[in-house]
Amino acid sequence: MDKYIFELTLKVRDYECDLQGIVNNANYQHYLEHTRHEFLSSLGVSFAGLHEQGVDPVVARIHMAFKTPLKSGDEFISKLYLRKEGIKYVFHQDIFRKEDLKLVVRASVETVCVVDGRLRESALFDQLFAPFLI
Amino acid sequence: MDKYIFELTLKVRDYECDLQGIVNNANYQHYLEHTRHEFLSSLGVSFAGLHEQGVDPVVARIHMAFKTPLKSGDEFISKLYLRKEGIKYVFHQDIFRKEDLKLVVRASVETVCVVDGRLRESALFDQLFAPFLI
Amino acid sequence: MDKYIFELTLKVRDYECDLQGIVNNANYQHYLEHTRHEFLSSLGVSFAGLHEQGVDPVVARIHMAFKTPLKSGDEFISKLYLRKEGIKYVFHQDIFRKEDLKLVVRASVETVCVVDGRLRESALFDQLFAPFLI
Amino acid sequence: MDKYIFELTLKVRDYECDLQGIVNNANYQHYLEHTRHEFLSSLGVSFAGLHEQGVDPVVARIHMAFKTPLKSGDEFISKLYLRKEGIKYVFHQDIFRKEDLKLVVRASVETVCVVDGRLRESALFDQLFAPFLI
Repeated sequence: MDKYIFELTLKVRDYECDLQGIVNNANYQHYLEHTRHEFLSSLGVSFAGLHEQGVDPVVARIHMAFKTPLKSGDEFISKLYLRKEGIKYVFHQDIFRKEDLKLVVRASVETVCVVDGRLRESALFDQLFAPFLI
Repeated sequence: MDKYIFELTLKVRDYECDLQGIVNNANYQHYLEHTRHEFLSSLGVSFAGLHEQGVDPVVARIHMAFKTPLKSGDEFISKLYLRKEGIKYVFHQDIFRKEDLKLVVRASVETVCVVDGRLRESALFDQLFAPFLI
Repeated sequence: MDKYIFELTLKVRDYECDLQGIVNNANYQHYLEHTRHEFLSSLGVSFAGLHEQGVDPVVARIHMAFKTPLKSGDEFISKLYLRKEGIKYVFHQDIFRKEDLKLVVRASVETVCVVDGRLRESALFDQLFAPFLI
Repeated sequence: MDKYIFELTLKVRDYECDLQGIVNNANYQHYLEHTRHEFLSSLGVSFAGLHEQGVDPVVARIHMAFKTPLKSGDEFISKLYLRKEGIKYVFHQDIFRKEDLKLVVRASVETVCVVDGRLRESALFDQLFAPFLI
């Protein structure tokens, strides 16, 4: 049974590759962020909208293991599931090369919620994410 | 009759927005580049592959007019057509907001071909692009 | 006599280079923006501070000619002067490779001021920039 | 006694801030990479030059803890020291806000060396880094 609850298929853009001819590592962080925001969006929540209401989900900690580099022309599937740990929501995010489903990046991303400048439990997220927690 | 010969639909990624809450201008240049490379790709030509063969299309000059800013969540359609002017291929590229087809950016991008470090006519491009020139 | 009124020396960062092994064109737009903002900063004006006050200088139009590509390790000098044309401030911005002062990019950047969402003459900018206009 | 062996002072560029008005997390990865490459450069080694010789240092794993966000206008000091662990060189990299030396990001970056496409011990790095290992 698949643990992932959301996925997004994307394609490498050439400007994301660096002089080694592979996607620059920082861009994987962009891919992961975009996947989380699209997940929120699929639940009807806009990241920009949250910010305007004074609610800012922020990343407290990120771990990334780089397994197979993506290159120009590669398509990839970015998948996630999440767990609650204390006040934090931890997103487990894996990126696979579409062609052969080889693991590209394995990441865990600990996020917390800042409301009006202060670290807070977020009733909104608790409610939104409840269906996805075991 | 539509003059455009290629189009690509994309969505703003939140990290592309800056502190003004709109897409940072430099990212439009990324969108334009990605559209040209996907156009090449649709013709069976890989930009990275060209580089490995010592053929580097480069931008000599770019003009961009910024009409309507894109925001978080916006989808947009990036369209292009091209003209040959002397040794240069000029890409005319327009970006429209998908929601209302409002013009976002109007650009012209003059490209030349560098082969083994020297400015050259490219037989490859002449052949590839012939069907799209009037 | 030198027409430039502000300059900034920077160094290429490797992640700014793409798979062609040279600085990706969109990054020159970043360099130009950063130079303008540092110029403002030298006058005691913060771009982010302006935004918080509802004043957003925006780029209406940009022209860039790419003359010599920068590579990994290159230092460069980014210079500017400005002219007022109607409601617009036009920044003339040139980037030179430090090593041999070769011209890298020649750009003109037309900016306008949006105050509370509307295009406006900006008394602030008129006052700030007066000493630099001929 | 200070454990750091290299440091670099940089300033936030406005385009590095996202719609939350703070530096986008992926940019810290850029800062860390640039610091490592400048460290290499201080030892007379060019990252791009290595690539041309078929030697590619790559990041296998990265851990980042985000403590205090940087904002527009902030200057920061990016420091590092390194340890060898088996075949890996682990860079310990901390970023401090210049104004009050508050910790911004604490990171560890595990790097390995790929020579002609294969994971290798690098005699070059062993020799270069020997003076900095305890």
